Amino acid sequence: MSPIIFAVEPFGGSVRDHNPNLPLVFWDDAAVTRGDGVFETLLLRDGRICNLDRHVSRFLASAKLLDLPEPNIDGWLKATIMAAEKWRSHTTDDASCVWMYTRGRETTGIPSAWLTIRPLSPTALHQRAHGVAVMTSPRGYHIDPPETTEAVPWLVVGAKTLNYAANMAALRWARAHGFDDVIYTNGDIVLEGATSTVITVRGKKIRTPTAGGDILPGTTQAALFEYATEQKWRCKEKQLVLDDLFRADSVWLVSSVRIAARVTRINDQELPAPANEAEIRELIEAALTSNLTNHP
Amino acid sequence: MSPIIFAVEPFGGSVRDHNPNLPLVFWDDAAVTRGDGVFETLLLRDGRICNLDRHVSRFLASAKLLDLPEPNIDGWLKATIMAAEKWRSHTTDDASCVWMYTRGRETTGIPSAWLTIRPLSPTALHQRAHGVAVMTSPRGYHIDPPETTEAVPWLVVGAKTLNYAANMAALRWARAHGFDDVIYTNGDIVLEGATSTVITVRGKKIRTPTAGGDILPGTTQAALFEYATEQKWRCKEKQLVLDDLFRADSVWLVSSVRIAARVTRINDQELPAPANEAEIRELIEAALTSNLTNHP
Repeated sequence: MSPIIFAVEPFGGSVRDHNPNLPLVFWDDAAVTRGDGVFETLLLRDGRICNLDRHVSRFLASAKLLDLPEPNIDGWLKATIMAAEKWRSHTTDDASCVWMYTRGRETTGIPSAWLTIRPLSPTALHQRAHGVAVMTSPRGYHIDPPETTEAVPWLVVGAKTLNYAANMAALRWARAHGFDDVIYTNGDIVLEGATSTVITVRGKKIRTPTAGGDILPGTTQAALFEYATEQKWRCKEKQLVLDDLFRADSVWLVSSVRIAARVTRINDQELPAPANEAEIRELIEAALTSNLTNHP
Repeated sequence: MSPIIFAVEPFGGSVRDHNPNLPLVFWDDAAVTRGDGVFETLLLRDGRICNLDRHVSRFLASAKLLDLPEPNIDGWLKATIMAAEKWRSHTTDDASCVWMYTRGRETTGIPSAWLTIRPLSPTALHQRAHGVAVMTSPRGYHIDPPETTEAVPWLVVGAKTLNYAANMAALRWARAHGFDDVIYTNGDIVLEGATSTVITVRGKKIRTPTAGGDILPGTTQAALFEYATEQKWRCKEKQLVLDDLFRADSVWLVSSVRIAARVTRINDQELPAPANEAEIRELIEAALTSNLTNHP
């Protein structure tokens, strides 16, 4: 199934179906020259976008943090519906939908906006089914907390910017050393995955590290916490240390498209599958799809 | 004068003249989706590239840090010569030449490589002539030094990556507050400009903050130090504090294309022009152009 690319007029107006075999972005686009833009990755299931409201909120927040013009969400939704219909006319497979919004061409000053829909990678599907071996690692840098004098008002932490070179380098390193993914740590404190949120399950308790600072708020984690709380699980954001991961019944990396990958090994320590592995997986999937009827 | 774009075959081979009015980059290029690539900005003067060897060295080092295939420098030089000849056939004005090298399209795995030549911006020309008012500011984050346990082997600090969103945000902030540029500081310690190296001149002494950690080695500063030392200036890399800037005869932000912008104000303190302003400016320009005969 060939990718679907729709170019969006940033201030509303027409949507253009773009041939994925042709170049799309100009040489002087800020996304290319500076990584200056934001994105969201959304799951398309049964032709519908999962967890839409949270992605919209984070997309708006990211754009605001980067001082980009406020995205015209009606236009984005219209384009997403058109693209999703095109996808659905070919297949009902899960797909990854990415919204891209950049500061645009230097020569025009108008933001660039487009969305893509594409099949899930075989790696994502395999990790969903079989879990991931993870390496823990420091990030190599510290964000100065807002209460310190070194904090700055413009820092774009908390925005999903296109500045992912360091995360990609960490993943390459992990793969070269026999791991599938990375969990960032600060000393003993657990932060987040390279492109996911860490979740632990122990009895009826679900935990995740408190977001903020250098932990990006996770849309999948938020959907899970809301839904699981309704299902009588006790969910809480709190500081987690490495030992909390080893003491848990199970540890998961959750994200929009891979959804949930169980952590099967941390460094050299195996994490055996819990008895309720299928139940947890279904809980997370249900959290993302429970209110799809309202979605495009 | 319209920009010149040449697409380069990353592993050698043909060079393609690309129409700047057409899109160049594919939707799934790592530069666009992840800021995953490196660049160099070079000055073209009288149709020749300035300070070529240092740019080549840093370009190779950046690619290596990002684990990109080693750039085929002969191919880059051939393309640069062709593009420079095209530029020279139209004008002898200074131009900015940018080499872009990305991890390439996800669907092909082949790096993308191209170069652009374009006129200098009116802002760069104005700042060359009239200097810059700068705001000092912390970066908002700290890189963990290599001797600490939090340091990581893959961190791409020291590479000129496409992850410039934070620098661009700092410059927007500065401009919104009546400044032209930013000098990053760590407490009292002077680091670097948002896209330049800090230089002080006092008597016959020229100083710059020691590179490494979160200070990118500057190619213009290196050329200046080599040339100025030959001209009997005493040049040294050392830790500078803010007071060193106020005590200097003059403070400069040096970079490849703007070359040298004298700092005329730091926060609310004016820095009067020194008697030797023209001499210093000529020294820096001469450092970049003294050995152009060997260059393409």
